[in-house]
Amino acid sequence: MSGLVDGEWVGTDYATDDDGEFQRQTTTFRDRIGPDEAFPVEAGRYHLYICRACPWAHRAAMTRALKGLDDAISLSLVQPERYDQGWEFSEAHPDPLYGEEYLRDIYVRADPNYTGRVTVPVLWDRERETIVNNESAEIMRMLDVAGDELATRDVDLYPEGYRDEVDRLIEDVYDPINNGVYRAGFADSQAAYDRAVDELFDALDRYDDLLADQRYLAGDRLTEADLAMFATLVRFDHVYHTHFKCNRRAIHEYDNLWGYTKDLYTTPGIERTVNVDHIVRHYYVSHGDVNPKRLVPTGPDIDFTEGHDRDRLPGGPPAALQ
Amino acid sequence: MSGLVDGEWVGTDYATDDDGEFQRQTTTFRDRIGPDEAFPVEAGRYHLYICRACPWAHRAAMTRALKGLDDAISLSLVQPERYDQGWEFSEAHPDPLYGEEYLRDIYVRADPNYTGRVTVPVLWDRERETIVNNESAEIMRMLDVAGDELATRDVDLYPEGYRDEVDRLIEDVYDPINNGVYRAGFADSQAAYDRAVDELFDALDRYDDLLADQRYLAGDRLTEADLAMFATLVRFDHVYHTHFKCNRRAIHEYDNLWGYTKDLYTTPGIERTVNVDHIVRHYYVSHGDVNPKRLVPTGPDIDFTEGHDRDRLPGGPPAALQ
Repeated sequence: MSGLVDGEWVGTDYATDDDGEFQRQTTTFRDRIGPDEAFPVEAGRYHLYICRACPWAHRAAMTRALKGLDDAISLSLVQPERYDQGWEFSEAHPDPLYGEEYLRDIYVRADPNYTGRVTVPVLWDRERETIVNNESAEIMRMLDVAGDELATRDVDLYPEGYRDEVDRLIEDVYDPINNGVYRAGFADSQAAYDRAVDELFDALDRYDDLLADQRYLAGDRLTEADLAMFATLVRFDHVYHTHFKCNRRAIHEYDNLWGYTKDLYTTPGIERTVNVDHIVRHYYVSHGDVNPKRLVPTGPDIDFTEGHDRDRLPGGPPAALQ
Repeated sequence: MSGLVDGEWVGTDYATDDDGEFQRQTTTFRDRIGPDEAFPVEAGRYHLYICRACPWAHRAAMTRALKGLDDAISLSLVQPERYDQGWEFSEAHPDPLYGEEYLRDIYVRADPNYTGRVTVPVLWDRERETIVNNESAEIMRMLDVAGDELATRDVDLYPEGYRDEVDRLIEDVYDPINNGVYRAGFADSQAAYDRAVDELFDALDRYDDLLADQRYLAGDRLTEADLAMFATLVRFDHVYHTHFKCNRRAIHEYDNLWGYTKDLYTTPGIERTVNVDHIVRHYYVSHGDVNPKRLVPTGPDIDFTEGHDRDRLPGGPPAALQ
């Protein structure tokens, strides 16, 4: 737990339990944008604070990009390196709304007594000057569904007939994969690490099998579940494999997950949401307790834009993206 | 520099210069076994202290195994994990000669005023109760050449007509590859790391090309140069790739280096000198400044005994090994 004490930000965002198992703390701003909600759907009203390195923020950024919400919902970045004072703005990545120094200042604007994790993404309301929501799956869903009336492209990532399956998949992928890499990397005991890595690779093997016969996780349609999965896969070989020691296998060594990763990367709109430089700088520099010398490896020699064979399977990106 | 001060061993074995570049300190016992040397060639007289994790010690262990020197030159292991007090003996890996607690005690037996690195391999003389030599390339050469009269197998790893090339190769492989992985892993600055990694992968690429057309580094004959190269390659994917962040490419992703590694691994005598468990435990547990949580990854799912295609090339292991 962290918070402002006598003007100084103290505490840690990362905690492990008695078994050395990483425990992700829950997010606290959980309001919603929507026609019947406290926060109405209005172009130009909302702002997304993200970090290009963060896989959770990436879900929101991809939804915004695929649906063509760039003009309706503004977006800005924080500095990828994160030190003791948490996510910060910088000359290269300033706060366009208030010129604040740290992202925590935005949290304190929303709630002067805020204590807790300062995370991205943050969906900010310019009108009421507060945080609508900081839970990535909920922001992804809001931009996807409520964002429809602002979207410039007909892209539906939570289509009727697929919704139960998309919800199930997002849930199923979360613990062993999205959070699993963190459970491995931030484990404080060998047993916790071993458990996380076993569950991670069991899940990856299982999804590699699933993707042998279908183009996307839910079948022939690109959905939010794919964005959740992709956000981890695209970071895997550069950071999770080495930095978080998930080194049993690289994604580019999987028969189907690798083609799937390249397929999503080359789906129009996605590539510009991926910044490998920010990704590697964030992880290797920010976690001094895992990588004390903060050296940033060059990473594997892989190319997300090289050909893939996913076109052989039924379905494909929404027509609006083709 | 390290040494015994008031009965406590102090100092570090690892030093970097002002540019953050790892500087390997030189070894200090440099005598020789040989017919005209101070240490005569005698079966049962010498003992090798090694660690199965250490690539330098591995050269000596492989030479002993290939030439069938097991009965003539005894061998014992130290505990793979190394902490502040340096290499140590343990219940599983005791000192068979003196029952000492630490390997440094053996160094101090040889020289009561010894200060400096306490490394493996150590070639010990039971008769004069001192260290003959602790320089791996020299021990490899001694066992190979002087050891011939004790050898139970006709294996010559420094054959006439190849000697200049073997010497050149051992020298050429040392800085970018054998020591290059340490220069990457122990670098104290990004520039030193980047330089080490660039030189390492340039050299690996170059040797991968060379090995497309010839079975061994010196051509059609297995030589000491191959043992020097193999000691690094067999550790690469499990430790150097992840722990030392040499993650541009894994050895099992190279067209020729991977087949070459498997060819050497399956050369009779070599496999029993490789202990992957000792290798991963040593590196991940011993270097708290690189891996503070000392978690030991399971490592990549690779099999050194799966088939290789090196038989297509001229030459092969010495007839005595076939």
